[in-house]
Amino acid sequence: MAIVEVTVVPLGTAEPGLSKYVAGCQEILEQEEKIEYQLTPMGTIIEGDLELIFALIKKMHHHPFEQGALRVTTSIKIDERRDKKASMKQKLGSVHDKLES
Amino acid sequence: MAIVEVTVVPLGTAEPGLSKYVAGCQEILEQEEKIEYQLTPMGTIIEGDLELIFALIKKMHHHPFEQGALRVTTSIKIDERRDKKASMKQKLGSVHDKLES
Amino acid sequence: MAIVEVTVVPLGTAEPGLSKYVAGCQEILEQEEKIEYQLTPMGTIIEGDLELIFALIKKMHHHPFEQGALRVTTSIKIDERRDKKASMKQKLGSVHDKLES
Amino acid sequence: MAIVEVTVVPLGTAEPGLSKYVAGCQEILEQEEKIEYQLTPMGTIIEGDLELIFALIKKMHHHPFEQGALRVTTSIKIDERRDKKASMKQKLGSVHDKLES
Repeated sequence: MAIVEVTVVPLGTAEPGLSKYVAGCQEILEQEEKIEYQLTPMGTIIEGDLELIFALIKKMHHHPFEQGALRVTTSIKIDERRDKKASMKQKLGSVHDKLES
Repeated sequence: MAIVEVTVVPLGTAEPGLSKYVAGCQEILEQEEKIEYQLTPMGTIIEGDLELIFALIKKMHHHPFEQGALRVTTSIKIDERRDKKASMKQKLGSVHDKLES
Repeated sequence: MAIVEVTVVPLGTAEPGLSKYVAGCQEILEQEEKIEYQLTPMGTIIEGDLELIFALIKKMHHHPFEQGALRVTTSIKIDERRDKKASMKQKLGSVHDKLES
Repeated sequence: MAIVEVTVVPLGTAEPGLSKYVAGCQEILEQEEKIEYQLTPMGTIIEGDLELIFALIKKMHHHPFEQGALRVTTSIKIDERRDKKASMKQKLGSVHDKLES
């Protein structure tokens, strides 16, 4: 299991706002029950099986092309631990514990 | 005004958990009233004056060295619009509006 | 065809130098004839079929675990154009043309 | 001294090609003698004093706005070691040594 942040950005779209593309990518994630995900102001963070997440990211990367974009840049950051089970919740909890002590 | 995501990662720390360094960086941000910020499972997103944010990021990048780290990698992503006032809240709201319509 | 930058970083490796892991990832790429790639001081840039590149990145991400790492972060940036054939060489050439004119 | 990769990307520019903005950013770097830098197909890697590099990145980030862009995203990755002097050349050399042995 891994935690992955992904940001899909079409270039040369004539207008600077990109929320319709972001919304389209969210709809791709909504259809997949086996992952957890959260939208942040700078991307989307997904938790789940890495193989499955890669398949979803491919769909997200292709989405703006289907909407007419000519160029897409997609940034992905994978964080995977094998010494313990890491989740989005556990990572945040671990920082909060340190802040309180 | 800009929205900036920052992730500070010390390398070669002997143990894979990094939450104590993340907590130290949060404490730097807590002391600055003129910004908004939120911790995510993959970094920290800061909203405010870009000049001020750069000054804070320098402090965050130096923090792990003060704790004994020998090597630090810091990733920063700036998103700045000048056609309209963009905030973390407005960016999320814009996507949610598209998802509901 | 796409151009993709990838950086694989094991965390908690006791020593700050990571070149042996980088070398291991280069050996994975050397075995694949259908791509072009170049090592930079900050990552590796690969040009080729996106599906094939994803398969290679999975192998690169797994490599440090096989060497004993407990946590690995992998950053990936995809740049894909569908309006024209883009290559690493063409991208650099296009900037140099602008600089000379 | 640090090694820093930076990529400046204007959004909503009507056309997908961005080489004129990249060229403009290179001209900013050309004027500064105290740094080393190299253009890659995915960004620019700069080596030098971190304080100076931050000042240059601010200029690079502002450049597309001066050319009429309404939104700019700038990605920065800092790699700083304090246990030994790291340079772009030394990092590449270290990997090549491992590959040859």
